[in-house]
Amino acid sequence: MWSGRFTLEPHEMLTKFSESVSFDWRLYRHDIAASIAHAQMLGKQGIVPKEEVEQIQQGLESIRKRIDEGNFEFSEKLEDIHMNIEKALTDLIGEAGARLHSGRSRNDQIATDIRLFLREEIDAIISLVEGVQRELVNLSAEHVETIFPGYTHLQHAQPVVFAHHLLAYVEMLERDKQRLLDCKKRVNILPLGSAALAGTTLPLDREYVAHVLGFSDISRNSMDAVSDRDFILEFLSCASIMAMHISRFSEDVIFWFSQEVSFIEIGDQFCTGSSLMPQKKNPDILELARGRTGQVIGSLISLLVVMKGLPLCYNRDIQEDKIPLMTSIDVVKGVLAVLAPMISSITANKSKMLEAASDPALMATDLAEWLVKRNVPFRLAHHRVGKFVGYCRQHNIPLDKCSFEQLKSCIPEADESCLELWDPQKSVSSRDIFGGTAPNRVREQIQFWKTKDFMKET
Amino acid sequence: MWSGRFTLEPHEMLTKFSESVSFDWRLYRHDIAASIAHAQMLGKQGIVPKEEVEQIQQGLESIRKRIDEGNFEFSEKLEDIHMNIEKALTDLIGEAGARLHSGRSRNDQIATDIRLFLREEIDAIISLVEGVQRELVNLSAEHVETIFPGYTHLQHAQPVVFAHHLLAYVEMLERDKQRLLDCKKRVNILPLGSAALAGTTLPLDREYVAHVLGFSDISRNSMDAVSDRDFILEFLSCASIMAMHISRFSEDVIFWFSQEVSFIEIGDQFCTGSSLMPQKKNPDILELARGRTGQVIGSLISLLVVMKGLPLCYNRDIQEDKIPLMTSIDVVKGVLAVLAPMISSITANKSKMLEAASDPALMATDLAEWLVKRNVPFRLAHHRVGKFVGYCRQHNIPLDKCSFEQLKSCIPEADESCLELWDPQKSVSSRDIFGGTAPNRVREQIQFWKTKDFMKET
Amino acid sequence: MWSGRFTLEPHEMLTKFSESVSFDWRLYRHDIAASIAHAQMLGKQGIVPKEEVEQIQQGLESIRKRIDEGNFEFSEKLEDIHMNIEKALTDLIGEAGARLHSGRSRNDQIATDIRLFLREEIDAIISLVEGVQRELVNLSAEHVETIFPGYTHLQHAQPVVFAHHLLAYVEMLERDKQRLLDCKKRVNILPLGSAALAGTTLPLDREYVAHVLGFSDISRNSMDAVSDRDFILEFLSCASIMAMHISRFSEDVIFWFSQEVSFIEIGDQFCTGSSLMPQKKNPDILELARGRTGQVIGSLISLLVVMKGLPLCYNRDIQEDKIPLMTSIDVVKGVLAVLAPMISSITANKSKMLEAASDPALMATDLAEWLVKRNVPFRLAHHRVGKFVGYCRQHNIPLDKCSFEQLKSCIPEADESCLELWDPQKSVSSRDIFGGTAPNRVREQIQFWKTKDFMKET
Amino acid sequence: MWSGRFTLEPHEMLTKFSESVSFDWRLYRHDIAASIAHAQMLGKQGIVPKEEVEQIQQGLESIRKRIDEGNFEFSEKLEDIHMNIEKALTDLIGEAGARLHSGRSRNDQIATDIRLFLREEIDAIISLVEGVQRELVNLSAEHVETIFPGYTHLQHAQPVVFAHHLLAYVEMLERDKQRLLDCKKRVNILPLGSAALAGTTLPLDREYVAHVLGFSDISRNSMDAVSDRDFILEFLSCASIMAMHISRFSEDVIFWFSQEVSFIEIGDQFCTGSSLMPQKKNPDILELARGRTGQVIGSLISLLVVMKGLPLCYNRDIQEDKIPLMTSIDVVKGVLAVLAPMISSITANKSKMLEAASDPALMATDLAEWLVKRNVPFRLAHHRVGKFVGYCRQHNIPLDKCSFEQLKSCIPEADESCLELWDPQKSVSSRDIFGGTAPNRVREQIQFWKTKDFMKET
Repeated sequence: MWSGRFTLEPHEMLTKFSESVSFDWRLYRHDIAASIAHAQMLGKQGIVPKEEVEQIQQGLESIRKRIDEGNFEFSEKLEDIHMNIEKALTDLIGEAGARLHSGRSRNDQIATDIRLFLREEIDAIISLVEGVQRELVNLSAEHVETIFPGYTHLQHAQPVVFAHHLLAYVEMLERDKQRLLDCKKRVNILPLGSAALAGTTLPLDREYVAHVLGFSDISRNSMDAVSDRDFILEFLSCASIMAMHISRFSEDVIFWFSQEVSFIEIGDQFCTGSSLMPQKKNPDILELARGRTGQVIGSLISLLVVMKGLPLCYNRDIQEDKIPLMTSIDVVKGVLAVLAPMISSITANKSKMLEAASDPALMATDLAEWLVKRNVPFRLAHHRVGKFVGYCRQHNIPLDKCSFEQLKSCIPEADESCLELWDPQKSVSSRDIFGGTAPNRVREQIQFWKTKDFMKET
Repeated sequence: MWSGRFTLEPHEMLTKFSESVSFDWRLYRHDIAASIAHAQMLGKQGIVPKEEVEQIQQGLESIRKRIDEGNFEFSEKLEDIHMNIEKALTDLIGEAGARLHSGRSRNDQIATDIRLFLREEIDAIISLVEGVQRELVNLSAEHVETIFPGYTHLQHAQPVVFAHHLLAYVEMLERDKQRLLDCKKRVNILPLGSAALAGTTLPLDREYVAHVLGFSDISRNSMDAVSDRDFILEFLSCASIMAMHISRFSEDVIFWFSQEVSFIEIGDQFCTGSSLMPQKKNPDILELARGRTGQVIGSLISLLVVMKGLPLCYNRDIQEDKIPLMTSIDVVKGVLAVLAPMISSITANKSKMLEAASDPALMATDLAEWLVKRNVPFRLAHHRVGKFVGYCRQHNIPLDKCSFEQLKSCIPEADESCLELWDPQKSVSSRDIFGGTAPNRVREQIQFWKTKDFMKET
Repeated sequence: MWSGRFTLEPHEMLTKFSESVSFDWRLYRHDIAASIAHAQMLGKQGIVPKEEVEQIQQGLESIRKRIDEGNFEFSEKLEDIHMNIEKALTDLIGEAGARLHSGRSRNDQIATDIRLFLREEIDAIISLVEGVQRELVNLSAEHVETIFPGYTHLQHAQPVVFAHHLLAYVEMLERDKQRLLDCKKRVNILPLGSAALAGTTLPLDREYVAHVLGFSDISRNSMDAVSDRDFILEFLSCASIMAMHISRFSEDVIFWFSQEVSFIEIGDQFCTGSSLMPQKKNPDILELARGRTGQVIGSLISLLVVMKGLPLCYNRDIQEDKIPLMTSIDVVKGVLAVLAPMISSITANKSKMLEAASDPALMATDLAEWLVKRNVPFRLAHHRVGKFVGYCRQHNIPLDKCSFEQLKSCIPEADESCLELWDPQKSVSSRDIFGGTAPNRVREQIQFWKTKDFMKET
Repeated sequence: MWSGRFTLEPHEMLTKFSESVSFDWRLYRHDIAASIAHAQMLGKQGIVPKEEVEQIQQGLESIRKRIDEGNFEFSEKLEDIHMNIEKALTDLIGEAGARLHSGRSRNDQIATDIRLFLREEIDAIISLVEGVQRELVNLSAEHVETIFPGYTHLQHAQPVVFAHHLLAYVEMLERDKQRLLDCKKRVNILPLGSAALAGTTLPLDREYVAHVLGFSDISRNSMDAVSDRDFILEFLSCASIMAMHISRFSEDVIFWFSQEVSFIEIGDQFCTGSSLMPQKKNPDILELARGRTGQVIGSLISLLVVMKGLPLCYNRDIQEDKIPLMTSIDVVKGVLAVLAPMISSITANKSKMLEAASDPALMATDLAEWLVKRNVPFRLAHHRVGKFVGYCRQHNIPLDKCSFEQLKSCIPEADESCLELWDPQKSVSSRDIFGGTAPNRVREQIQFWKTKDFMKET
């Protein structure tokens, strides 16, 4: 490739050590698309004769077809996807192929390829995110009135409806999407034309290439453009936050599925057994989904470490961007794809949920707020109800089994209407505030989501 | 605080272990602002009498003043900034103070406080980023024609102008700003009204509070709102990428400042000496700036690890969000603040730069592209020039000291006009493409930046 | 400090930005101990007159006393602990103080100080680890026969005894200790005598200093010695693994403490309540212990990022070692200190544990192994028992409520003695293998631990 | 595999999502070795008839051979390496194969396999580390007298010999080895016999299996043994520190190889060129070696995140241990393997090194220490020499070009013998302290290394 200047062939170990084609081959469609656009522009600018542009385009398309069909042998000796394709092209069409690399360098070429690749993958991920949102909204729609114990500190806190809990995850995924869309703005910038670092002396038309490839803008500084991997780091950050969300969802579902909790059942087809224990049915998907958070966060760190302290412009270290990027994309897509049908296989055990939420202690806040409405300062109300709870625990009486006198002795402001507060259904309905858990509010939210485009599918 | 229900006092160790006021006291202004808005709304809604709202507001303002002036003693026993302030308020105004916490929980309160805090800090950081951009643009403006060796792989690549290299960092910082602005959109959402997790039974007006506090929207799901720390993670990602940029800039400047390179001088006032070696003048600011990248990336990981696998909703683990957030803010602000004046103290050694850029080998690409313009396929042109470079190295002749015959023997297509290509000035000027290093293109970029608001200051 | 060579005073911002005394003041005892040893050696070698060595020693001891008592004002202008102490010494004793820094640099001085500091902290941490082990062994000793459901995938797997589960954490902590002891071997090496990077021209006696300070060896290469921070990274790795163990323990205890599980009660004095919900009793200690894992792992990453890609020898970046080190030490010590008494406050709800472990499905493996003992190939045995479990689930009959005929129809090899397998007590006793859960085996392990020195305390 | 209990087949997506055989197939030799040892023990204990043990052993050996030769088709449907091999065995030998899994679970099986695998890989890595040490010692041996500028802060500090700098890396690698050996102690413990979590009811002989497989001890607690991955985390920590060392070495060499510095040449066979710039010769190996630090640190974080907050015992998340482990092993081995020959291709440009080290400012410390020997307090000596350096800079005179009078005017204690201090050769020789850079000291160190076994090879 650069034999002119060197007196010794690359050491066999160097070849093996430095090749990237074993993973960057995945960029072949993007590399070819970018090369075709580049060639067309070279033709338009008179740098390469039109008929050779034609040959280049046809040659590249036939190479793409061969790779699509698995009929292309990648060579480590040719280092990367770019040289593999350029070599195949020149083998195919001769001299015209040797003109393709005019005015560009692998530095701006790879930056262009990854941006095309990531732009596409972001769209694919968003679509998968929406698939999970859809299943969550659908499951929510069945559980707007399903009473469920809300937790803080994994302790019973207040009753909610199950749909409200599920929709919290729809919110998280929505933010993930918004972040990805913001990231995509910064992905969708064309670096081609920056050449190795300084631009080129050839009269390229960068705007034209951007137009052909659907980039919304072109980079302003060639030295920055070839050494910038911010857009990958930003994507990996988005993916890490999303993976964290999924780890939380998994944790919740695994808890619900434990024998002690038994709030839900997961379809057999999404569980696995044990090689030793015949009775086992394990929620492996959720454990793996939770565990794979590690790979995504590890990938983010990996690239941050790579980039830390690198001088300008391109350094070979930057090649190490692809494995973390591809790993994270694969993990995130894999997890999202399997979560959607898994969610649709969940069946709720409403009576178990209701039972857990019916502990009158969960309504203690309702009582405190009832007192506030009767003009008792909140802090005093809180203290009085706390005393009452303490009293009940000491005497080992459930709150709703206390006599009105006992209640009154702790809370002088109480009247008999307090006794109605122990009903979780009423409790839930009374949290009738935007964002709150009252069924009519939750139904509003479901309506909000149902208007979204992504709900229309399937 | 919650004495009602408990039979034993908190263990002294628990108090020490779980307190957060030693660091969350920094949120006092935001906590007070949010409480005042909450109180006004409680008044407006008839939950707290207007005259008590007045007392609350005055009480809180006087507490803020005391903290501002350092006349407030924080107590670890009161755990956090919220209880410290509420207690002080109740001590000050009695019963009215005990009404303040109506319809809210510390869960939504802290989420509101941090959002107010971070919104403000993002603005402060953006302003500091612009201060660095300004100095970089100013320094660039002096060096639009300063020839400089462009590097890839820390090897001489092609000549550029020094301004072009500096402006690459302006680009990075600009992306940092854009990311922060996108992040701010997601910070600027009001969670108050979510209470502990499920909303409240009291008739709050969340829109009103959002309006008073300048939030652009209110959260849609209370369970999500109290356990969401995405906005901090997103900020920490932005800060990590920014810190990485600064580490690269530092690496460059440290290299330029080494005796072997000697491209720049840094003002004495920004360097330190050695306790042992009397001759030393060290670029410590840049080393520290590079090193502190560690703290920022460490903070990002720290919070990702905290959040991983947490069930809904609030868990006490989430309290661990503040130290990474505050650490990163302090590091990033500290570094940006010191970089700006340090940059303005840099003086360039133009002759050293020019000397390094004048090695004719840096113009080898120009020769290859010259051939392309004469219709030689690029790959062949590259090979011919490579051969010529190899020939010169073997015979130990600088490229520009070869005779025309020697040149011609390697590159039959050469003519005498090639010999003019060895001039770095010409080389630079010929990279006249948008984003390229030609002085007129770089001047265009400086004009672009000079129109920005942030250039107007100072 | 280095005024000789400079023409401008340090910029006020540089001072603030680069000072470390606000955190490295914690090393004052170690700095002073190392300085006294150094001074004694300088005296012994005739580099400093004996009477001045005496003055230095007394001066340093009086400074230590002042710092101990809080009567010492640290100055940021003097950058670090070293210069603060040296300056105070010279102020106190004059010329003799100015001789102290002979043959050393802050580079080898700080490396020595941190090694002394960390050596001490490792001992302190080991002692705290043993405190937790002690409480776990003590609690185990009460629960050798307490039947408990063993989990995999958070699903009931097989019965175990509660002590067995608790002792698993004793094992983890034991490995943590062993790792810390291995780390300490590499901490306990004297770098002093390496000076700035190359050693010194003065005739120091390094062995003598090592002896006085209790180092087991001296460093072999001065350039390495001043830029090596492996020992901190190794410590941070040990601490990260330990923090991870604690996060797992916390997760377990939080699960056991949830209302659905209710296996344990934690003392009121180690729980907190809610500012809003009067009934709440939350396991905050365990949540914070779990959450603080983030800070420790973040610290490890932080220093790995700092060190990545630094050229030799000392670079100012390396100053960024102290905050992660100190943070991690503080977190780990704080968590261990609070865990020990918290564990001793735990009371087990044996009947809840037994109830959960009594689901006959947990004994399915026993049945399969019973078949193996009757010569049924394991894989077939597993399949038969699986079928039987499936049969029971379909017919909604608990395994132990099936008739012998039903059992026999699925498992032809069964005989009536199988019916005794449903007893969890028997199940546990039959896992009588070294490392297994049979009470006599677990008792053996408790004996093993009880012979350890650390069990003797209290 | 567990069809007995389930009513639905695993969803195709679950299979794809949860399979691990695509990467854990690499453990086949270890899985088979462990299975043979297990089978022999089952025979010895009378659990499986001896003749069937014979069949199992032969069957497993023939499967190993098939895999060795690439004649084995792994099936994702069979999830992992264990079930793939067990299935093939049963297909091959029938019933006897179905007996193999008696008394074990995949939980203790995989833990055993990875320990065997990692034990072997640690040995392989140590051997590669020694290969690099060997080349560094060999190169050092040629440069005991090669004067070289020692750096701190990337600024000239004091002259050293080049060998001294190189040997600093030998020290780092030696610590890496020691850490790996300590880690290996904790790897080399047998978990088999722990079964799923609680041990087994079958009468296994664990000591026997440990003996056959060469484990030095057996695990004491079955619940710990199946969920412990500390040994992998510890390995990843060791690997991360090693990778950091390599990143520092790479940074140094890249700097030395830059045109401005030109201290060394690297063999053409270890460098690459540019697709655009014909003159380029880039040190890609070192950049990739530096960059791959990211993958190793990322892997460490990845597994720490996986393990954080997992309840006991085995959870499927733990399967995520293998990719980080294998990735790190591959990266570290790959880098070490290529570094050794690359180092042997380095040639030093002694005159460039000497020139850089001859700046008399590097001898400023020598002058200060000369004064100390004449009884000037060090701090005063430092100040005087600093003044002299400042004087020279202001008057733009090299230190060694000052007249004796000029020197004397700054440093009254000077005499003419000071003028001999400017010689870097003398400077180096005078740092004659253990660990210092004096050639005789460095030669001592080389002798020390040369006695090591690893120097004998090649």
